[in-house]
Amino acid sequence: MQVIYLDNNATTRVAPEVVEEMLPYLSEFYGNPSSMHSFGGRVGDKIKTAREQVARLIGASPEEIIFTSCGTESDSTAVRAALATQPDKKHIITSRVEHPAIKNLCEYLAKNDYRVTYVPVDREGRLDLDYLYRSLTDDTAIVSLMWANNESGVIFPIEEVAAKIKAKGILLHTDAVQAAGKVPVDVNASQVDMLSMSGHKIHAPKGVGVLYVRKATPYAPFMLGGHQEHGRRGGTENVASIIGLGKACEMAAEHLDDMQTRVRGLRDKLETALLTQIPNSMVNGTHDRDDRLPNTTSIAYEFVEGEAILLMMNELGICASSGSACTSGSLEPSHVLRAMNVPFTAAHGSIRYSLSSYTTAKEIDFVIEKMPPIISRLREMSPFWQEAAQNQLVGS
Amino acid sequence: MQVIYLDNNATTRVAPEVVEEMLPYLSEFYGNPSSMHSFGGRVGDKIKTAREQVARLIGASPEEIIFTSCGTESDSTAVRAALATQPDKKHIITSRVEHPAIKNLCEYLAKNDYRVTYVPVDREGRLDLDYLYRSLTDDTAIVSLMWANNESGVIFPIEEVAAKIKAKGILLHTDAVQAAGKVPVDVNASQVDMLSMSGHKIHAPKGVGVLYVRKATPYAPFMLGGHQEHGRRGGTENVASIIGLGKACEMAAEHLDDMQTRVRGLRDKLETALLTQIPNSMVNGTHDRDDRLPNTTSIAYEFVEGEAILLMMNELGICASSGSACTSGSLEPSHVLRAMNVPFTAAHGSIRYSLSSYTTAKEIDFVIEKMPPIISRLREMSPFWQEAAQNQLVGS
Repeated sequence: MQVIYLDNNATTRVAPEVVEEMLPYLSEFYGNPSSMHSFGGRVGDKIKTAREQVARLIGASPEEIIFTSCGTESDSTAVRAALATQPDKKHIITSRVEHPAIKNLCEYLAKNDYRVTYVPVDREGRLDLDYLYRSLTDDTAIVSLMWANNESGVIFPIEEVAAKIKAKGILLHTDAVQAAGKVPVDVNASQVDMLSMSGHKIHAPKGVGVLYVRKATPYAPFMLGGHQEHGRRGGTENVASIIGLGKACEMAAEHLDDMQTRVRGLRDKLETALLTQIPNSMVNGTHDRDDRLPNTTSIAYEFVEGEAILLMMNELGICASSGSACTSGSLEPSHVLRAMNVPFTAAHGSIRYSLSSYTTAKEIDFVIEKMPPIISRLREMSPFWQEAAQNQLVGS
Repeated sequence: MQVIYLDNNATTRVAPEVVEEMLPYLSEFYGNPSSMHSFGGRVGDKIKTAREQVARLIGASPEEIIFTSCGTESDSTAVRAALATQPDKKHIITSRVEHPAIKNLCEYLAKNDYRVTYVPVDREGRLDLDYLYRSLTDDTAIVSLMWANNESGVIFPIEEVAAKIKAKGILLHTDAVQAAGKVPVDVNASQVDMLSMSGHKIHAPKGVGVLYVRKATPYAPFMLGGHQEHGRRGGTENVASIIGLGKACEMAAEHLDDMQTRVRGLRDKLETALLTQIPNSMVNGTHDRDDRLPNTTSIAYEFVEGEAILLMMNELGICASSGSACTSGSLEPSHVLRAMNVPFTAAHGSIRYSLSSYTTAKEIDFVIEKMPPIISRLREMSPFWQEAAQNQLVGS
């Protein structure tokens, strides 16, 4: 069965060009870049190229790029570096809709001598900027805000908040794992101090990430060990994946136009069709589509269970997500939808469709054709829907 | 030019069988194991298999295996978990010859409220057991000792020390990055609480490691984030590399006999020939070859520079190391050779040859043929050698 993969915010297909770049470093060129012999040196040169490719995607200098094992490690490193280098500051500001990498770290820190402010979002997933600005204190070590949300796709105004936060001398970290490669991300326009990226969200393999650290930003390594990454991250380099990530960043830059136009068009078409054809459905996220990632739409179908919808989609080969993949295994509505105050009856029936440059118009047409009967069949079986219909709460 | 790769303690060739296992997970099966759809589920099943393969190599249960990004992360996680779960204990014991992953972490901790004891080794690299046992206190949170040394190949008597350490209720971690796959490693015979492994030392790719944590051992995650690894290590799984590591562990178990017999024989032949044919040369490490890794010999050539030797070997396509690859970039003798009190004139001229199951008799014969003229040519140019010759300090 053909797979229609609309779960690209969970993970992406590794681009064949990326695999091709990697393969020599999984076979003949297996040297350790730290080794003296030229066999290892060749590998070191190729890592240098990858570092340049990554830097170019976000407007950084190569020496500002630290390779890590994933976005989670990048996030941890950023927050912990800010705390380690400012031992007197005990306050962290983040949002209520961050990825578990930041959320769970902050919850841990809140139990260990730190104070954490979670800035709320509104019903459309937009950050409460006044709340954020009011929360900034002399004790604030770092503000960590995602560039774009993995579930709703809502983009936070990082450039705007950066100016205010940095004017107060407070460090700003952004988790750009979902934003990089989907919208223009420029560390100079935004003036962030630290920025996280993940390989597997942009068609590189799982197990490699990036932390950008602006020159002169106070820094302390999270992973202590060898001299790798100029002493900023110990551990032998994940050579093949780093090389793959370099290529993926080069390709992401080339595909940005396609993402902003063709993929955005497909997303808009999908969203409009589903909202029009399926009663009692609504978007989780701002109605201003320009303020959401061009590849993402999260739609809440009232009075049905997301897991049941996914199962029926799965039978047709359509892959999507009922929330953040990272928190699946639980049937609770995700913390993101809860923070957005999505009504309980809708949060449970939310499906996130996330497209990529590989998504075709034919695939989107197929999904548009198949979703309405899935939802109506499930609603026929739903006691909640029956009850709501009796109370005339639902459309036809 | 044919490469003769004798730098396997720095990193190993990825086995073609390992790459073959990985490739489907870098192409068609790119799902996120955390995803609901069956496309992701298939990946999860394969990770389960890998976990079983890894567990089998060291006699563990699959649920005791945590996948990490490298040996360095495993080491950090182990030590930090022991400290986090025993907040009242402020003492760490390790040795003077540990890998930078432990060494640099301990040096950092020593500056941050902890007390570290570095157990010395003797001239042959053997651990001072009396010193170790005398150092154990009620305040000791963890003892971290490598199973085998990366530079000298000397094996520490982990099973013997485990009994004494555990009798006092102190946690024992071992960095088995160099030992696993070269000598039998069994977590039950040795009763260690935690054990680190690295993929790229056993013919899996760089960027994946393992931390074994014995059931019921107090544990706290180092990488906080999603629910992966049963909440013990956040971050999306490095799927392809984990699957490769599983295969590599299966192969390591199969190749253990070859390592213990044929490869050991090649190492012995190489060592004997070099010591016999090259005057003023000596082994760095115990003379009891059974107490060294079967693939490793580190030989000190007096009055020559290791870097110069490596360059001349490199011209012939022979890859080796002048110390730990992880600390190269510096011309200082390694901390391991210094801890062993290798004389300055010899430490500088030390070459580590580390073989693998891919090493052939023909390759070893070639190295045996080429090394003596390399050393004698360099010595002809060495003022130190000339001076030593005048003082009749050198053989002929």
